[in-house]
Amino acid sequence: MSKILLLQGANLTFLGRREPAIYGSTTPAELDVMLQRHAQQHGYQLEIFYTNIEGEAINRIYRAVDEGFDGLVMNPAGFTYAGFALKDCIKGAALPYVEVHISSIAKRNIHCVLSDVAEGMITGFGMHSYILGLDAMLEILRKRAVGR
Amino acid sequence: MSKILLLQGANLTFLGRREPAIYGSTTPAELDVMLQRHAQQHGYQLEIFYTNIEGEAINRIYRAVDEGFDGLVMNPAGFTYAGFALKDCIKGAALPYVEVHISSIAKRNIHCVLSDVAEGMITGFGMHSYILGLDAMLEILRKRAVGR
Amino acid sequence: MSKILLLQGANLTFLGRREPAIYGSTTPAELDVMLQRHAQQHGYQLEIFYTNIEGEAINRIYRAVDEGFDGLVMNPAGFTYAGFALKDCIKGAALPYVEVHISSIAKRNIHCVLSDVAEGMITGFGMHSYILGLDAMLEILRKRAVGR
Amino acid sequence: MSKILLLQGANLTFLGRREPAIYGSTTPAELDVMLQRHAQQHGYQLEIFYTNIEGEAINRIYRAVDEGFDGLVMNPAGFTYAGFALKDCIKGAALPYVEVHISSIAKRNIHCVLSDVAEGMITGFGMHSYILGLDAMLEILRKRAVGR
Amino acid sequence: MSKILLLQGANLTFLGRREPAIYGSTTPAELDVMLQRHAQQHGYQLEIFYTNIEGEAINRIYRAVDEGFDGLVMNPAGFTYAGFALKDCIKGAALPYVEVHISSIAKRNIHCVLSDVAEGMITGFGMHSYILGLDAMLEILRKRAVGR
Amino acid sequence: MSKILLLQGANLTFLGRREPAIYGSTTPAELDVMLQRHAQQHGYQLEIFYTNIEGEAINRIYRAVDEGFDGLVMNPAGFTYAGFALKDCIKGAALPYVEVHISSIAKRNIHCVLSDVAEGMITGFGMHSYILGLDAMLEILRKRAVGR
Amino acid sequence: MSKILLLQGANLTFLGRREPAIYGSTTPAELDVMLQRHAQQHGYQLEIFYTNIEGEAINRIYRAVDEGFDGLVMNPAGFTYAGFALKDCIKGAALPYVEVHISSIAKRNIHCVLSDVAEGMITGFGMHSYILGLDAMLEILRKRAVGR
Amino acid sequence: MSKILLLQGANLTFLGRREPAIYGSTTPAELDVMLQRHAQQHGYQLEIFYTNIEGEAINRIYRAVDEGFDGLVMNPAGFTYAGFALKDCIKGAALPYVEVHISSIAKRNIHCVLSDVAEGMITGFGMHSYILGLDAMLEILRKRAVGR
Amino acid sequence: MSKILLLQGANLTFLGRREPAIYGSTTPAELDVMLQRHAQQHGYQLEIFYTNIEGEAINRIYRAVDEGFDGLVMNPAGFTYAGFALKDCIKGAALPYVEVHISSIAKRNIHCVLSDVAEGMITGFGMHSYILGLDAMLEILRKRAVGR
Amino acid sequence: MSKILLLQGANLTFLGRREPAIYGSTTPAELDVMLQRHAQQHGYQLEIFYTNIEGEAINRIYRAVDEGFDGLVMNPAGFTYAGFALKDCIKGAALPYVEVHISSIAKRNIHCVLSDVAEGMITGFGMHSYILGLDAMLEILRKRAVGR
Amino acid sequence: MSKILLLQGANLTFLGRREPAIYGSTTPAELDVMLQRHAQQHGYQLEIFYTNIEGEAINRIYRAVDEGFDGLVMNPAGFTYAGFALKDCIKGAALPYVEVHISSIAKRNIHCVLSDVAEGMITGFGMHSYILGLDAMLEILRKRAVGR
Amino acid sequence: MSKILLLQGANLTFLGRREPAIYGSTTPAELDVMLQRHAQQHGYQLEIFYTNIEGEAINRIYRAVDEGFDGLVMNPAGFTYAGFALKDCIKGAALPYVEVHISSIAKRNIHCVLSDVAEGMITGFGMHSYILGLDAMLEILRKRAVGR
Repeated sequence: MSKILLLQGANLTFLGRREPAIYGSTTPAELDVMLQRHAQQHGYQLEIFYTNIEGEAINRIYRAVDEGFDGLVMNPAGFTYAGFALKDCIKGAALPYVEVHISSIAKRNIHCVLSDVAEGMITGFGMHSYILGLDAMLEILRKRAVGR
Repeated sequence: MSKILLLQGANLTFLGRREPAIYGSTTPAELDVMLQRHAQQHGYQLEIFYTNIEGEAINRIYRAVDEGFDGLVMNPAGFTYAGFALKDCIKGAALPYVEVHISSIAKRNIHCVLSDVAEGMITGFGMHSYILGLDAMLEILRKRAVGR
Repeated sequence: MSKILLLQGANLTFLGRREPAIYGSTTPAELDVMLQRHAQQHGYQLEIFYTNIEGEAINRIYRAVDEGFDGLVMNPAGFTYAGFALKDCIKGAALPYVEVHISSIAKRNIHCVLSDVAEGMITGFGMHSYILGLDAMLEILRKRAVGR
Repeated sequence: MSKILLLQGANLTFLGRREPAIYGSTTPAELDVMLQRHAQQHGYQLEIFYTNIEGEAINRIYRAVDEGFDGLVMNPAGFTYAGFALKDCIKGAALPYVEVHISSIAKRNIHCVLSDVAEGMITGFGMHSYILGLDAMLEILRKRAVGR
Repeated sequence: MSKILLLQGANLTFLGRREPAIYGSTTPAELDVMLQRHAQQHGYQLEIFYTNIEGEAINRIYRAVDEGFDGLVMNPAGFTYAGFALKDCIKGAALPYVEVHISSIAKRNIHCVLSDVAEGMITGFGMHSYILGLDAMLEILRKRAVGR
Repeated sequence: MSKILLLQGANLTFLGRREPAIYGSTTPAELDVMLQRHAQQHGYQLEIFYTNIEGEAINRIYRAVDEGFDGLVMNPAGFTYAGFALKDCIKGAALPYVEVHISSIAKRNIHCVLSDVAEGMITGFGMHSYILGLDAMLEILRKRAVGR
Repeated sequence: MSKILLLQGANLTFLGRREPAIYGSTTPAELDVMLQRHAQQHGYQLEIFYTNIEGEAINRIYRAVDEGFDGLVMNPAGFTYAGFALKDCIKGAALPYVEVHISSIAKRNIHCVLSDVAEGMITGFGMHSYILGLDAMLEILRKRAVGR
Repeated sequence: MSKILLLQGANLTFLGRREPAIYGSTTPAELDVMLQRHAQQHGYQLEIFYTNIEGEAINRIYRAVDEGFDGLVMNPAGFTYAGFALKDCIKGAALPYVEVHISSIAKRNIHCVLSDVAEGMITGFGMHSYILGLDAMLEILRKRAVGR
Repeated sequence: MSKILLLQGANLTFLGRREPAIYGSTTPAELDVMLQRHAQQHGYQLEIFYTNIEGEAINRIYRAVDEGFDGLVMNPAGFTYAGFALKDCIKGAALPYVEVHISSIAKRNIHCVLSDVAEGMITGFGMHSYILGLDAMLEILRKRAVGR
Repeated sequence: MSKILLLQGANLTFLGRREPAIYGSTTPAELDVMLQRHAQQHGYQLEIFYTNIEGEAINRIYRAVDEGFDGLVMNPAGFTYAGFALKDCIKGAALPYVEVHISSIAKRNIHCVLSDVAEGMITGFGMHSYILGLDAMLEILRKRAVGR
Repeated sequence: MSKILLLQGANLTFLGRREPAIYGSTTPAELDVMLQRHAQQHGYQLEIFYTNIEGEAINRIYRAVDEGFDGLVMNPAGFTYAGFALKDCIKGAALPYVEVHISSIAKRNIHCVLSDVAEGMITGFGMHSYILGLDAMLEILRKRAVGR
Repeated sequence: MSKILLLQGANLTFLGRREPAIYGSTTPAELDVMLQRHAQQHGYQLEIFYTNIEGEAINRIYRAVDEGFDGLVMNPAGFTYAGFALKDCIKGAALPYVEVHISSIAKRNIHCVLSDVAEGMITGFGMHSYILGLDAMLEILRKRAVGR
């Protein structure tokens, strides 16, 4: 059974209350329910971790390697702009990484410093971005399992 | 029944033969079969249009508006770098637009000039990027149908 | 009798339907009537040519030289951003060129790559920009006819 | 009866004697006669004001607001490069502003810092640029009078 | 008794009428009353000088040195963008200088070329910025009087 | 009774011992006494929070929203250069924010990435910057209380 | 017998009439005769294709791969500045590519976006540049035939 | 007896497992043994501190000042790219600082924002970089002890 | 007898009192005596004009042309940074222009926007720069008198 | 009989031993034999000069002018990056200059500072670049001999 | 027995007399004695070569390859800024290269163009930098001898 | 008796024959006579040294220090663009340095990398630049002799 870590970067604890015109009104609790349901339906184990501290994100990822996680899905959020240490961590951890953004960062003229260590990226589909990101990760893990 | 136009930008006619290490070995014919099957399963009408000429892409999009299409999914491919006229066209046509790239353009340090008029973007998952892009478009159309 | 070519660049076929807040609601058909009336009143021959393909614009301009046209008025529209080949064409064709934009491109922070091969430029006066552009071209042709 | 202020920026007092290859040999006196004749023919009141001091231009514009002027046509000339205070003034005065340049500034690779507060701009037609600029202003005032 | 010069840069004569959404509707006359009242309450002499001409501002500052003024508070306003000569003047005059802006220039993405010769800067508090600026200047003069 | 959070960014725990030529010799303890006295005199509740960890600052601000604080005054200090996550947090928290710097950052050629989400900014007056910042915040809260 | 495609980019149909001070007065017809004679003398098959439309150039190149061509010599001309799609096509087609320019583009301060996918480049020798480019291509094909 | 703090920046806890082609396979435990042995041989006290959180590094450095440490040797690792707060901390702490990098950052085209507050820098000698860095620090402390 | 205009730009009225470490302690009055003595010794007429207003400098230069002056020596001082209108004036006036700076502007990393319309420039020799500048102007006038 | 100087810039003495993957394994001796044979076959005199010192190259070129050489072919090699003095020398010497590079410098993203004083440039064909360069020079000399 | 070449770049012949505040007062002669003693103690052969001419440095390095040297230690000094030819030489010579600077070039905001071909770099420790650089080279040679 | 070294940089041996429109037709021999005459008249010893090799210029300058020269006047000519080693040499030699250029380099938009170590600079007066440069140097030496 696959184990996926979903990392929620800085400011996502305030989801639903923060700039709802951009990020919608879904709260972290509601989002977690929605995503755990997706995990059950597709038969994988999902852990969701929120932090506002970049170094804690790094700690969590290295621990995930030790705990045998198979993949990392992350919305870097506040770490989007200057998360260089986090980026080096992802390269070091060598877990497949799928990047997810709620809003279209290109539309808002934002460049994410982490994108170039991701397998792929999904942006702009609101909460549905998470679903697509987890689908994409499952596909990646399926392909790796098959052989290639 | 929703109608979606999938536009394949410059150089995609050569898919499967062109830089397979980056773009894989799936041919356009194989890809079309795979995507039409997805259309049948999800009950929408899909038209796939390939062109190497930017102005033809513009012509096709305006015709799609007249023909009542609901959404545009596009892999801009060769138009990624300087497709400014195409970008203005998409703004003018006012169809929801989902952008798709086979490879991770961030990893290859490529910036797409069209991304900021897209609802959202999906990059890096090989042929699966198209499936995720169509899923995302269906979700967008569903939400608009509900009321928005 | 003077012969003037009015070239309408990419996306202008959709005039009146495309971003009317910026470009107004006049359609190409209505614009053509208005401009041909101007041609009759001022006694010159006017040909209006629309295209979304930069290379077709180039073809049309070279043909205009062979057909004895005296001047080129153009709204580069979608070719504004990267129409470098078109620019070389205008330098090569050696027809006097007046550039016209419906909106104020400076206000929208847009730089046109073609402007520096134009005799002069007119921007921001809506459909009236075309009238002023044709007036300016007639003045240029009058001066050349006089001698210098 | 409309009242239009024509402001002549730095160095235009020397018109006709200064770099005639670029700016022609028409003197300020000759230009004024030509433009006042245009004002009589089209039935509006025209005041022409020359200054080499940016702050005096600002003073004149604010006074024009108090005197009930309807529009501002200006050749910024020497204020083209760094006339930022003048630009703020035009935004503040809220008069419609049409910008005029004798030469084609794009051809000479010059960017005017004032252009983005103008309704529109006319460049490159020698003394005829003023005539076209005044025509454009009259059209703007006519449209505002009608309703919008 | 301390003597403070308040210099009001380009376009502030039009305060209250100019872009009130940004700068409020207080007029220069009302502002002067409010500030002179502050001067009376805190026991210092205040002179307020408005000019749209940068060189006049320079003349006024050097005269202030000769007249024994103790400090300069200035809202550079229109001189914000290119007031380099004014900046050299302030360095030369060697009066303590406090810079004041009505609006938050950082929010509007404006960089003031004079700021780096100021003791300190206050921006964004509307008319209250002047009060805070004068308070800050009084504090500076108090400290200098004490010894340091 | 208004509640204001004063957040002291990275390196301010070392105030008074760190580069005293720039930041003065007042210690955090002395500063706190001075500011709490100001709070008593002006009748508002003040909480002062020091942290060297950007994510802890984010945590504290969101908690402040839950605790009913009315405003945020902050000296970003070490977060000045790359505190992008903190900036998003402030936008999300939607508390009025006044930015304070001890030294004149313009003089030192430093740009603060947080300034453009502040109501206003005060720089360069040493410890007195805090007093002026709290005064400014009280004025903002007073105005909001009155109506808008 | 080797087959070489010579592709003539935008504006070359007007050769001999366009800016003769830079490009000389040889017409396309004269050039073709000269190059076909070179082909006969050196025993290879040469096809010359002119187009002003970038997408048609792409179409022609992919067709050349299907027709068994061995090499591509191209004067990108008008595609020099923004022919990014064409560049991707050449990488995809995997034909050896020799780039040719009539004038010295370095002298004219022009950078060609296609050069870094070329085996080599020849610039500045007028019509003789084509002869040298074909010579260079023959040498490349000879070496490949030998083994390496 | 000298006291030196060796600070290990973000991602170094994963040393030996992370990108071994670049950083080698020595683990933190092995490195610590090697360095403590060096400390014993040269008769100084060495404390080694690992953290992934920039603010914790700042906390540790200020505490080191209070504990009477004589010098700081640091491999900023993940803090290399945006550790501006850490840099201000080092300036504030006023301990001599020697910077160490395992790989040659110049070779990898990486610029460290902390280098210009270091006494000197050592890069590219693998684990031996630490030894050289500690040697260099001892030399600095010896010189300071002697007099200057 | 040659007539030379020496123009003293913004802030030079304060010479001798302003940043004496850079500009020395010679006052304008003393400088004028020294320079008029030089004029007498070398038999030319010298007029010295001080102004802090760029537009007045422009007015003075155009008047100088009408009065038959032969050359312009100027220390642009405060106009060094943004005197673009003044620069156009000098081009227009067509008087030979020698630029003079008291300090070495290269050493201070200052670029003067006027230098490229000067015959030559002299910087860094204190008050002696003026003497050298006038010598240089005399040499230019002598050569012009002789023939070429 | 024409006389051509072939100048071999810095590092070419080590040809054949230095980075053979890029520059091939031909030694200078072998190259010289090959090129002298070409000179004999085409009936011109060839002198080949190797130097690692830029100033010696300059000395050689000026001497070549005195000795009646007709043209310069050069592989600037190590002088490619900063050979500005050499560039001025070539402009001064006024010999026709053809530039040659063994590898495709565009592919390697290298810009040569000398290219814009060359008649033309040949890059990327290995040792064959020299042959093409000498062919091109002979063609230039033939044309000059004929008349123009 | 290892053979190491120590190359002293431009301006080091003047060591001890040149900017002693930065480079110390040790003369070349004293430095050589100190370094030869180090060579004796560690049992390797050291040759020290001073030159102010970049091309002579290149000549010396290629000769060193022929003479069987094992490593190059260099203080590029004056070649730091534009020694591109020297850099290509080092890549070509394929000797391990350790770079040494007396002062901290980062502190002085200097970027060395040679650093990215060095094994490692040592900066900022005065004369002791050489000792550390030679130590580092010995370590490199020892490792190569052992196996890898 | 003062001793001055006049250093003539790269390409000046060709003076009079090289681009006479820019540099005039005076030969080195004629220039030397003119300058030695100046030396006799003003009673100082002048040595003139020409070289095309930057390192030889450095050697000559250090030797000049040993020979008791008092000042350096130099026309860097070809070393203008990248003479960084020469610049460090001048800083090291600590001779007062006056920089001389025949043409106005600002007019030609050339920046000299050596200027910021010069006492002052003279540009644009043809051969007379040398005379002015020597005059300036004599003045500097006179002042130093007097005391300061």
